[in-house]
Amino acid sequence: MPRLYLYSNSAGSFVLNQNLFVIDKVLFSDKEIISYSSGLEKAELIDPEKKLLKKHKKGQFVFVGFKTDMECDISNLGKVSSALKTSIKDVNSALKHANTIITINKISHSVNEDICIMQAVNHLSELEKISNTMAKRLREWYSYYLPEFSESVRDHEKFVELILKKPKNQLMKELRLKKDQSMGGELKKNDIDPIMDLAKELISVYKLKEKQKNYIENLMKEYCPNVTAVAGAVIGAKLLDQAGSLKKLSEFPSSTVQVLGAEEAFFRHMTTGSKPPKYGFIHEHPFIAQTDKKSKGKIARALADKISIASKVDYFKGEFVGNKLRKQVESKLGKSK
Amino acid sequence: MPRLYLYSNSAGSFVLNQNLFVIDKVLFSDKEIISYSSGLEKAELIDPEKKLLKKHKKGQFVFVGFKTDMECDISNLGKVSSALKTSIKDVNSALKHANTIITINKISHSVNEDICIMQAVNHLSELEKISNTMAKRLREWYSYYLPEFSESVRDHEKFVELILKKPKNQLMKELRLKKDQSMGGELKKNDIDPIMDLAKELISVYKLKEKQKNYIENLMKEYCPNVTAVAGAVIGAKLLDQAGSLKKLSEFPSSTVQVLGAEEAFFRHMTTGSKPPKYGFIHEHPFIAQTDKKSKGKIARALADKISIASKVDYFKGEFVGNKLRKQVESKLGKSK
Repeated sequence: MPRLYLYSNSAGSFVLNQNLFVIDKVLFSDKEIISYSSGLEKAELIDPEKKLLKKHKKGQFVFVGFKTDMECDISNLGKVSSALKTSIKDVNSALKHANTIITINKISHSVNEDICIMQAVNHLSELEKISNTMAKRLREWYSYYLPEFSESVRDHEKFVELILKKPKNQLMKELRLKKDQSMGGELKKNDIDPIMDLAKELISVYKLKEKQKNYIENLMKEYCPNVTAVAGAVIGAKLLDQAGSLKKLSEFPSSTVQVLGAEEAFFRHMTTGSKPPKYGFIHEHPFIAQTDKKSKGKIARALADKISIASKVDYFKGEFVGNKLRKQVESKLGKSK
Repeated sequence: MPRLYLYSNSAGSFVLNQNLFVIDKVLFSDKEIISYSSGLEKAELIDPEKKLLKKHKKGQFVFVGFKTDMECDISNLGKVSSALKTSIKDVNSALKHANTIITINKISHSVNEDICIMQAVNHLSELEKISNTMAKRLREWYSYYLPEFSESVRDHEKFVELILKKPKNQLMKELRLKKDQSMGGELKKNDIDPIMDLAKELISVYKLKEKQKNYIENLMKEYCPNVTAVAGAVIGAKLLDQAGSLKKLSEFPSSTVQVLGAEEAFFRHMTTGSKPPKYGFIHEHPFIAQTDKKSKGKIARALADKISIASKVDYFKGEFVGNKLRKQVESKLGKSK
């Protein structure tokens, strides 16, 4: 009985005789490449191999490759695959083609929740800066028109809404200013329009910010519910972004989680010996804000501790323990008061 | 006949007898304060003074103050005004009130075209940065969805318009990509929406930028038509902003106009002796862009020269010579080629 080698790579399945000539082959279609590529290293025969086996059933097959729990001879691997490369010219280009398709498929499938969260949270930070730039400009510009009003409203969003809603004379009435009592100039409509256009755009940026925040919250609740419950969606997303992925975040010790986002202060501490930072992104957390200055470090440590646990639970798809973890920090908060 | 002093300040008009007691007065209303305040230093009698003169026509008047071409005794000014301050208690508060009103009025009237232009052109620069930040984020984010398309369109505005107009499968067709041939991930609608929201906002920012640019152009054409004709509206506005006002710009020598906006490079030149900058804001001018590298400095000098002349003409409201000045630079451009 002739001895035959059965060998598969990402381009197709091949039967070689004992002189290492290819006597039969099945080249994969583009679709098959992707579906078979993931199975090539598993110990199961794929359809083309089964077909080839049937067709050449008189031969005594030597399986070459990774079919370890079958009758398989790995020692022939190098011999067979190099024979394959030289014996058929188009195998090389088929292999290149197959590997390109596999790579594209892998890259395409690497787009996951981590990436969506990271893009969205970076975008949110940018929108924060953008809205601040616009609000500052709006206040400065509007101040030439009615400076007294800008002084009277601290909140940017409220300020924008009001100047869009109410004309100058109404705002002056509310400020109890008579005509000629404002330091603002009498601008022509032409010169007021661009200020109002800026205000409208700013409102639209605020709305977008709200929308993107909601998106992050929904995605975070689904993808890492525990981290979200303990840290909050935006802080959680920032931590995940800084770490690079949920996997990496889950691998960090809690002391790293505590100072994520305070890299600058941390490395200043490492090089110049200045005080180490107490917290990074988590300083925005309401628990830290509620705490008096003395206990901030302690609460930050407890919080980072629970976030770290939460991230591990989330990565390994454990049960939801977020609320329990959050309460544990909360109880420390109560004691420190 | 008794001797009487007639004296006016911003609070009102006063008649004092020879013992420097106030025997009559007319305190101005708020409206009168503003209208009279500008006339107080002129050599004309104002209405309240005329009234007081008529009423006390039996007295021999000594005019005190700045009515120089009338029968006026400036030497009594200090004596009379200090007597006024001490003799009537409420004169001080009336004077304070009057001066507050005058100051508010002056501040309010100091809002002029210079300020509108400066605010608008700074706003435009900020919008430029904002739209770039947003476009970069959009491209990065969208690249996880269809990277091949981002590569194929260089212009940000075109890119945004196209991704909003055409769905992924249509764009893939145009790129001649079959299914599974894109490196982009298959995102859910939920994850695509925030990208498209960002794109829509960006379109809106582009529109606002265009609008504000038009506003600057119209304002510049009206306020400094000559500078606008030679330098262009936006460059002209930037020069005006850096100078502080059209007046200040018109006082600059052309060598300063040439490097306005390149302060950093200029002071580096002054302190370290590095090469002096050839141009500041005017490097964005089409004439400079058209010139080969060797002649850029020469054209920049000629351009700054004509802008400087144009600003002087504009400030002193001279005739329109902008096109002539522009042509003079253009002819040099022709020769240098």
